[in-house]
Amino acid sequence: MTLPKIEINCDMGEGFGRWKMGPDEDLMPLIDRANIACGFHAGDPTIMLRTIRLARTHSVLCGAHPGLQDLLGFGRRKMEIDPHDMYCMILYQVGALKAMLEAEGMGLSHIKPHGELYFYMQRDEGIMRAVLKAAKTFGVPVLGAKGKRQAEICAEIGVEFIEELYVDIDWDKQHNLVPVAKSHPATPEGIKKKVTMCAETGKTIDIDGDDLDMGFKEKPFTICLHSDMPTALQNVKAARQAVDAANAKLYPGN
Amino acid sequence: MTLPKIEINCDMGEGFGRWKMGPDEDLMPLIDRANIACGFHAGDPTIMLRTIRLARTHSVLCGAHPGLQDLLGFGRRKMEIDPHDMYCMILYQVGALKAMLEAEGMGLSHIKPHGELYFYMQRDEGIMRAVLKAAKTFGVPVLGAKGKRQAEICAEIGVEFIEELYVDIDWDKQHNLVPVAKSHPATPEGIKKKVTMCAETGKTIDIDGDDLDMGFKEKPFTICLHSDMPTALQNVKAARQAVDAANAKLYPGN
Amino acid sequence: MTLPKIEINCDMGEGFGRWKMGPDEDLMPLIDRANIACGFHAGDPTIMLRTIRLARTHSVLCGAHPGLQDLLGFGRRKMEIDPHDMYCMILYQVGALKAMLEAEGMGLSHIKPHGELYFYMQRDEGIMRAVLKAAKTFGVPVLGAKGKRQAEICAEIGVEFIEELYVDIDWDKQHNLVPVAKSHPATPEGIKKKVTMCAETGKTIDIDGDDLDMGFKEKPFTICLHSDMPTALQNVKAARQAVDAANAKLYPGN
Amino acid sequence: MTLPKIEINCDMGEGFGRWKMGPDEDLMPLIDRANIACGFHAGDPTIMLRTIRLARTHSVLCGAHPGLQDLLGFGRRKMEIDPHDMYCMILYQVGALKAMLEAEGMGLSHIKPHGELYFYMQRDEGIMRAVLKAAKTFGVPVLGAKGKRQAEICAEIGVEFIEELYVDIDWDKQHNLVPVAKSHPATPEGIKKKVTMCAETGKTIDIDGDDLDMGFKEKPFTICLHSDMPTALQNVKAARQAVDAANAKLYPGN
Repeated sequence: MTLPKIEINCDMGEGFGRWKMGPDEDLMPLIDRANIACGFHAGDPTIMLRTIRLARTHSVLCGAHPGLQDLLGFGRRKMEIDPHDMYCMILYQVGALKAMLEAEGMGLSHIKPHGELYFYMQRDEGIMRAVLKAAKTFGVPVLGAKGKRQAEICAEIGVEFIEELYVDIDWDKQHNLVPVAKSHPATPEGIKKKVTMCAETGKTIDIDGDDLDMGFKEKPFTICLHSDMPTALQNVKAARQAVDAANAKLYPGN
Repeated sequence: MTLPKIEINCDMGEGFGRWKMGPDEDLMPLIDRANIACGFHAGDPTIMLRTIRLARTHSVLCGAHPGLQDLLGFGRRKMEIDPHDMYCMILYQVGALKAMLEAEGMGLSHIKPHGELYFYMQRDEGIMRAVLKAAKTFGVPVLGAKGKRQAEICAEIGVEFIEELYVDIDWDKQHNLVPVAKSHPATPEGIKKKVTMCAETGKTIDIDGDDLDMGFKEKPFTICLHSDMPTALQNVKAARQAVDAANAKLYPGN
Repeated sequence: MTLPKIEINCDMGEGFGRWKMGPDEDLMPLIDRANIACGFHAGDPTIMLRTIRLARTHSVLCGAHPGLQDLLGFGRRKMEIDPHDMYCMILYQVGALKAMLEAEGMGLSHIKPHGELYFYMQRDEGIMRAVLKAAKTFGVPVLGAKGKRQAEICAEIGVEFIEELYVDIDWDKQHNLVPVAKSHPATPEGIKKKVTMCAETGKTIDIDGDDLDMGFKEKPFTICLHSDMPTALQNVKAARQAVDAANAKLYPGN
Repeated sequence: MTLPKIEINCDMGEGFGRWKMGPDEDLMPLIDRANIACGFHAGDPTIMLRTIRLARTHSVLCGAHPGLQDLLGFGRRKMEIDPHDMYCMILYQVGALKAMLEAEGMGLSHIKPHGELYFYMQRDEGIMRAVLKAAKTFGVPVLGAKGKRQAEICAEIGVEFIEELYVDIDWDKQHNLVPVAKSHPATPEGIKKKVTMCAETGKTIDIDGDDLDMGFKEKPFTICLHSDMPTALQNVKAARQAVDAANAKLYPGN
């Protein structure tokens, strides 16, 4: 899938009941694509619909952000799930969100697995295939950090794969994401610099400061920013400025 | 909506994880329409898909059986829910099931609210409207016991309403259902007699043994039988025989 | 039970997993008695133990804050619970907290029902008796807003009852608490004034500004402040100052 | 800890809400020690109290059967839990049960970890220590299948360890338990034979039919039987007969 221009995606709707997570109302006007939690790791039906309506107000694309069934651990604890059970859980979560989108006259734009589910896919091909097989039934692309094997399996199964750039945490030399706690703290300047660099060269810099080729040379890409970092708002604002500047220069017609 | 002939519906898929409820495998070949639990009062994603596949094997129509979010109480405890929250919860549950049906090449046939949700709708018009407004987005009929006000609101909102006959619990004179514990114990003979009577006269008998007009004269109807009674299997077998005999006589072409 | 001096109690530990609620770390040094959520409406085992340790650091008494089993609704939605089930649920929650306290070398100081459970007790004597019967097995007092019938039933069952003063929401003329949304907004000055007035006269002012006798004349009492209001910290600071001043004057030896 | 005679323990109270698991009412009169589920993998507060009362009627000792927080997977799915979180979860579950026992005038007799929690302890020493550290605060012994490392850590921490004999599933040559699906089907005759053999020789037979020394020579032991096998009742009856016969012969005074 070819994106028309560089864009920003963010996880949204990750509260639960009375509990809040990120500053969704402030972030939504600044992003292009929302990954909406589906009630398994965060989110509940009311928050899901509220998030959809907020996205619609700001013309933001809405995708599903399915996770492990683990509210207590925010979908970040490892759990062993049978691949068939996983297939069913993805259908369930994404289907729930899709029905809400359709009730609001919108369509599902993409699927982005959350947290530990994302890492589980990377290390377990059975889980990868289960998630992608479920995604295929919805006919939408899947978002994820660069992953050679994932790109291959997506192609085999017939699911479009959109590779992401992360700019608020680090990458190692093998294109693996470095956890927040071990990454350099994100700064607005650093984020802007990374966005501009990748827009122009298709590369970013890794945790050691060396160039890392993302393969985005002359190709629009989607940037994922964390909505649950304390500095989320300033990070997204910085990225927005750099993205708008790059798009104006590189993809003026889109 | 006019049914082509008299039919039987049953609640299905009401286990959870390792726990089982009714004898679904034995009942499915005997029924026409399955009300599949959607994970809030019972059921889980894996059971939902298994139930869908079992239904497909026996050419049984699949509807959603949404309930209150209450596994501990099996959706039978009263809970106060804001109507907007309820609207979201119905979209969520039914959407989850619908996605699974579509993944299996099937469509959603109907919606039947479960347990306390059903009674909540009857006594609270805000909840009734919330459920029906959600149902309308799916474009399928809603099943329920005879209820004048429900029929009116369905008509107003634009949702088809299919009225049910119950034959394994009793009715009072005001068309209210009598709880299992206060009803006469169901017997195969009693069930057959009620089915045949209603097929021929459109009436059933109430808890006192008096005639009760269901309005099904010369009109096919759907019979709901409980899958979680100890005698569920013999009850459904008895109903099946009587339904087949009545259909052969009254609706031979269908 | 006679308190040695005027004190402040607050609900604590009302986060869940990664989600936070009030500023517990800031509030704990300012209060005398913590009502610790027990995992049903909020809290989880890890948060419970962390809250106990935080309380111990500041020599704060630890009581149980049991609620309805309703994380999604934060224990504020009405649910119909069988009194025997409620009895079991209270034993369960309070027992879980008590074991943690004992593991830390502390004892359970009191029980304070949360949110809708509190109101449920007031309007349903079966639930009141179930909760108090469970409380009795722990041999600790129960906290609650002034309630004549509750005082009587506590006396009958043999449970000590400690009546609270609320100063950040209003009372009506019948000693009923007025919900936050309908109360006058709390101010530090208003809170100080109410604390001082009650310490000296045993009275507070109701929502209309008239005197309301709390029966605390020449009797120390416990003041409950909400930890989940946006102004919680300034409210508790104001109350602390007024309480300390009143205690220095009225109960200098304690 | 030295048992006075050979005894039988069984997992009890493993239903949830309306869902049932084993035939507890039939089994309880036949056993000596109940491992009562504590609400995390199965059980709920009402079932817990009912199980305690049933046990008391039949003079059965009551222990806690804590598990992973996983109703959907019945505590049998692998989950990665931080050892400190695990410590808190054990305190929580066992404390909840203990309070119920005390409300009934009974005491906690032991702790037996359930399902995947049991295996997690065996392969992860951090989890083993967390569970045993929590167990130590209750001052009761822990039950488990023979495990050298577990015996050592129990001794180090100061927790009594009671080793179990299993007779309805198989052991391999390294004293590991073989899953039900891979074990020889249990028969009443086989169970009786194994009980009698172990009572007399301290040995059992492994999956290949060879002798396996359990170290129970001239030492009473506890036999664990599964309450959730389809043949649970006949298995326990057979074990009861053999145990009674062996006790009459070997430990006549107890």
